Amino acid sequence: MSEIQVKDLIIDAIKNKKLSLLKELFETVPNIDIAEAMEDIEDVTQIIWVFRVISSEYTSYIFSELSPETQEKIINAFSDKDLIKLLENSFADDVADTIEEMPANVASRVLKVAPADLRKDVNQLLNYKENTAGSVMTTEFIMMLDTITVKEAIEQIRKKGKDAETVYTIFVRDKSRTPVGTVGLDDLIFANEEDELSEIMNRDFVTCSVNDDQEEVANMFKRYDLTAMAVLNNDKKIIGIITVDDVIDVMEEEANEDIAALSHVAPLEDSYLDTPVYKMAVKCIPWIIILLVLGTFTTMALDRIEKAPVFATIPVLIAFVPALMDTGGNSGGQTIALMIRGLATKEFSPKDFFKVLRKELLTSLIVAAAISVFAFVWFTIEQYLGIVTNDNLKTASGEFASIWNGGCWSIEFAKHSLVTSLIVSLTLLISAILSKIVAVVLPLTVAALKKDPAIVAQPLLTTIIDVVSLVTYLGIATIMAKIFHIA
Amino acid sequence: MSEIQVKDLIIDAIKNKKLSLLKELFETVPNIDIAEAMEDIEDVTQIIWVFRVISSEYTSYIFSELSPETQEKIINAFSDKDLIKLLENSFADDVADTIEEMPANVASRVLKVAPADLRKDVNQLLNYKENTAGSVMTTEFIMMLDTITVKEAIEQIRKKGKDAETVYTIFVRDKSRTPVGTVGLDDLIFANEEDELSEIMNRDFVTCSVNDDQEEVANMFKRYDLTAMAVLNNDKKIIGIITVDDVIDVMEEEANEDIAALSHVAPLEDSYLDTPVYKMAVKCIPWIIILLVLGTFTTMALDRIEKAPVFATIPVLIAFVPALMDTGGNSGGQTIALMIRGLATKEFSPKDFFKVLRKELLTSLIVAAAISVFAFVWFTIEQYLGIVTNDNLKTASGEFASIWNGGCWSIEFAKHSLVTSLIVSLTLLISAILSKIVAVVLPLTVAALKKDPAIVAQPLLTTIIDVVSLVTYLGIATIMAKIFHIA
Repeated sequence: MSEIQVKDLIIDAIKNKKLSLLKELFETVPNIDIAEAMEDIEDVTQIIWVFRVISSEYTSYIFSELSPETQEKIINAFSDKDLIKLLENSFADDVADTIEEMPANVASRVLKVAPADLRKDVNQLLNYKENTAGSVMTTEFIMMLDTITVKEAIEQIRKKGKDAETVYTIFVRDKSRTPVGTVGLDDLIFANEEDELSEIMNRDFVTCSVNDDQEEVANMFKRYDLTAMAVLNNDKKIIGIITVDDVIDVMEEEANEDIAALSHVAPLEDSYLDTPVYKMAVKCIPWIIILLVLGTFTTMALDRIEKAPVFATIPVLIAFVPALMDTGGNSGGQTIALMIRGLATKEFSPKDFFKVLRKELLTSLIVAAAISVFAFVWFTIEQYLGIVTNDNLKTASGEFASIWNGGCWSIEFAKHSLVTSLIVSLTLLISAILSKIVAVVLPLTVAALKKDPAIVAQPLLTTIIDVVSLVTYLGIATIMAKIFHIA
Repeated sequence: MSEIQVKDLIIDAIKNKKLSLLKELFETVPNIDIAEAMEDIEDVTQIIWVFRVISSEYTSYIFSELSPETQEKIINAFSDKDLIKLLENSFADDVADTIEEMPANVASRVLKVAPADLRKDVNQLLNYKENTAGSVMTTEFIMMLDTITVKEAIEQIRKKGKDAETVYTIFVRDKSRTPVGTVGLDDLIFANEEDELSEIMNRDFVTCSVNDDQEEVANMFKRYDLTAMAVLNNDKKIIGIITVDDVIDVMEEEANEDIAALSHVAPLEDSYLDTPVYKMAVKCIPWIIILLVLGTFTTMALDRIEKAPVFATIPVLIAFVPALMDTGGNSGGQTIALMIRGLATKEFSPKDFFKVLRKELLTSLIVAAAISVFAFVWFTIEQYLGIVTNDNLKTASGEFASIWNGGCWSIEFAKHSLVTSLIVSLTLLISAILSKIVAVVLPLTVAALKKDPAIVAQPLLTTIIDVVSLVTYLGIATIMAKIFHIA
């Protein structure tokens, strides 16, 4: 069956109260697909019916996948009894996520009817700052004393495991409540029943602190191939765990943030299709205006430079300004993207500054040499083909000289066009090298100062490269015009 | 202990053959950290010693984390006996990954000494195309018949589980070898010993095909919160599984590819610090040259336009060209980043074309209006402050008129500068709208044609926007100069 057919089937079963079909669908269709189908049902009484007839083992998870709007609608339509049933099978982190999106009165009603221990956990989770380990962790996990046996451990899991977010990693503590290791559920299966946990536990485990950045946590999951990690408070006691499914969401969020910053747009909080138009505009406008204001330096530089005598002597130089700026920007843009991504995924850190600078410097020499040689040839071809034209070089009939009217075969044309190509390609050489150096120094310095390189360093890059390229352009043009006696 | 201290301790223990310390370190330090320390040991006989004295339960994993250069060095120094011991505890996917990086003679030696079933699996894995599900899967998994009991299942796991990549997800098949469900190891713990797997299995499981793109697989893991997924061949039989740790690597790889494409650089195959300089240059040069050639259209347009009469009448218009191009590029760049990322993470697909186009069109109206109003005010300020200067407007002493010499208080100055601001900001209005529309149409069309939008659509965007902006600029300038009688 296709996705759309399944969706129609679910909606039909709900609207027409086909209970046995609906139960079969809940067994055989993944929860997230059911949640998506339920989003399309307008009549809240039909949704309430589903929550009453289907086991809350399923519905609690499905509820957590619904949009905040639908969640609010359902909570408002729920009796206290319905709400208690829903909360019984809910995890604290899901409840905290839901409550954060609700108006105050709805949130406080949920907290009022929640069981005391859930309420305590949710309130605790709501206190952690966004983007910290605390904000993505959950408080339902299994911790055991290192002196209990494998048999006792399995019994405890049978008793309490259903309330935990995962039983695949069991966190082991000593008498002083200090974490000393982890035991995988598979370790318990492979071990002898009488072994103590301290004998079979992995002692090479890693933990994070509740205030760590979620990006650091994601990098640790990747590095250590984890499925769950303990979160410690300032006293080094475990207060929660983070599971890999939440980390996958964090990784995507962080990648999206890097891409957004590199593309000069504030990151979206919701999915693209769920973000309203006015919010999209608010995400787009500030950066464009900031860049427009920063661009004033470029405008100012070009205004001064185009009035320089050499631009009157070789007016065709103006036509190459966009090529010059684009190429410098592209060369620096490549490097800054590698820097920002490398810093984010911990491939290197600001303390590798000289290693990275050396690598980009050497790379830039090769890249700049290749580009400027190519550009020299290409720009000469452009002039011969008449793609760009020179006011000072016309045929007797007043046309711009080019291959099409034979006006390009004079020594003066050759000299003019080769010198022009030389000026532009030499400028490219310098600006391609400089742009890569600036694109290393800027973000690594910003990162060393513990600021976000994607937001602080990147906007400055274009302006710096543009202005430096223009000034270099003027300098080289003036010198070359003198050397080759062009006037 | 800090990371560096641990590293020094490991290196010291190896170099000075401190066996009991080394064993303790292998127990308490994560494998990846040990692998990194071992990379720093030059003397291969010291590394060989580690592989001989430490259990291959640890060393096989550590070996898979070493760099290809170190792996090759070790294999060449290994006796066949050493190699067999290493391979006994290795997973087929790790061996396949290693072999792919080795010279042919080293690869064939590894395959020759490998046990027959491992050799078969590795050869099979090597056949799958890069970036497919087959290329990231492993062949070591646990599959059971749906009619066996929980007790029998646990016994089988105890017997065969150590050879499987994961025992947390058990794949269940019926008599015809068709997959019918999955059982979590936790389900086995919670169930009664006499239950049959068919009674407790999850029937709402998802699978992928061996030829599916790895990006699709990663999107399914994210959507369905999976830790392992079965990979089916064309006959719908399970031939392998993919685990979440490999998916995390895929997700990062795919995000890096999107970022690389948006930044005009070919994606790196190795980590940044491991990529040699010449390879970096090869990744950078082609795109810059392609963009330089595409930029010829912009050069041509600017060359034609700057010779138009209106640019002689209002020469200050040239100074605003970079601002115009940057703003159009930034506005389109925001949208194309959202498109390419949204398509990659399946937030939408080409069939949402009109929904997305409508959203970007409405957004662009707000963004363009905001920018052009701001730009009108800002560009006027620039002219009054003398940030840009007008050849036609000078004071009696020959200075460019501005607020600093009072030359800006004439009606002529006000008219000239307001009309100039109007021309630039009207052009911005149109190019900001157009750029967002092009940035939707181009990538979604390319994606609908099953080509990669990041590579095909993005380079064209800048050129199209630049040329359209310049032509619009000329048109608006000519009309405005006529309307306001500027000559």
